[in-house]
Amino acid sequence: MRIGILGSGRMGGTLGSIWARAGHAVTFSYSRSPAGLERLAREAGARAGTPAEAVRGADAVLLAVHWSRIDDVLTQAGDLDGRIIVNCCVPLDAADRELIVGTTTSGAELLAERLPGARLVSAFNTAPSEALAALARGWGSAPPPHLLYYGDDAEAKTVAAGLIRDAGYHPLDAGPLRTARFAEPFAMVTAVLAYEQPGGPALVYRFDRLGGEAEETDEPHS
Amino acid sequence: MRIGILGSGRMGGTLGSIWARAGHAVTFSYSRSPAGLERLAREAGARAGTPAEAVRGADAVLLAVHWSRIDDVLTQAGDLDGRIIVNCCVPLDAADRELIVGTTTSGAELLAERLPGARLVSAFNTAPSEALAALARGWGSAPPPHLLYYGDDAEAKTVAAGLIRDAGYHPLDAGPLRTARFAEPFAMVTAVLAYEQPGGPALVYRFDRLGGEAEETDEPHS
Repeated sequence: MRIGILGSGRMGGTLGSIWARAGHAVTFSYSRSPAGLERLAREAGARAGTPAEAVRGADAVLLAVHWSRIDDVLTQAGDLDGRIIVNCCVPLDAADRELIVGTTTSGAELLAERLPGARLVSAFNTAPSEALAALARGWGSAPPPHLLYYGDDAEAKTVAAGLIRDAGYHPLDAGPLRTARFAEPFAMVTAVLAYEQPGGPALVYRFDRLGGEAEETDEPHS
Repeated sequence: MRIGILGSGRMGGTLGSIWARAGHAVTFSYSRSPAGLERLAREAGARAGTPAEAVRGADAVLLAVHWSRIDDVLTQAGDLDGRIIVNCCVPLDAADRELIVGTTTSGAELLAERLPGARLVSAFNTAPSEALAALARGWGSAPPPHLLYYGDDAEAKTVAAGLIRDAGYHPLDAGPLRTARFAEPFAMVTAVLAYEQPGGPALVYRFDRLGGEAEETDEPHS
């Protein structure tokens, strides 16, 4: 396939190089550094060009720019009608900390406001009840599935981690309560997969690390 | 531990039963059916009570009601100051389809509006570039990690699935482009885990099914 890369930073550069090595004809474009773009293309066995050149005749276009650059790169790319575009952009602020399209709060944070004296931790919202039941029946596997938990109270998190283990999961610390604004939509991803995609609702997940640090993530950090 | 269950439906009922069997002293409360609550408690070797009774003296309180019932159950529970609360609620609408605290659109959907003639599919936003690089170096494992992709154009999804395989992942269909409103925050979850939690940034994930249907999810559905 002919693949045009719009945005040749870390994501676009890495993916384009992988695809070039897999045998695709890749054209990189849109980098802060023209020299870096040329070097990237040379090392990957690909071409460097303008966004319009990358898009012309492409069977697939990877869109991999910072959200703040979307308008600029699309304007430079020109007509995209009929093109297959693989989008890996997430609408992030300049600091890459917040979704600028999306929520700035969460159910958990609203609960914390409602119950300022309580010691709140969130967990189990990414576990379909069918998966809980299956684990309780001993249908689990080794290593155990992960379950995200997050909150601002260390002792409450330790208690939650124990209850998560009691349910047959490995507790995976996802940080402070504000993670809820990302993890509550993630709960919806698990619901989409469990209830709207084939395979059945007893859905579990694991996060792992590649390259030798895999087991480090298996310890809870509260 | 003494555990109070606020909301004894599917989630609360299942979790409370698991914890009762693990040896905790569980009190169920807040069910549509008082008879069902009694039966649930009897079968689990636990107690049934009011929300206030469930909370009194509890070392941990599970909050597991529909979001629309939060105010009611908290009012009935009474003072929660100092209590450890494990929240598994997600702020859902009555149909359990949408987050009512959270976004009603996404970057991908805005892109689709901006490019009505293009054939958009989202992918790779849940893959840290470090994980892509590690997979390219052959640091993958069998079975391969999953990568979510979603969109409204079947052919674009097929192309994306091929590119995902080229990068060493198993493509996991997460449905239509509107999944973006959940999957883009999920991308933030992967970023939190990769960059703010221990273990290193080469983060990958897999979803699996418990109980005999596990492999069905391994086929892409576009």
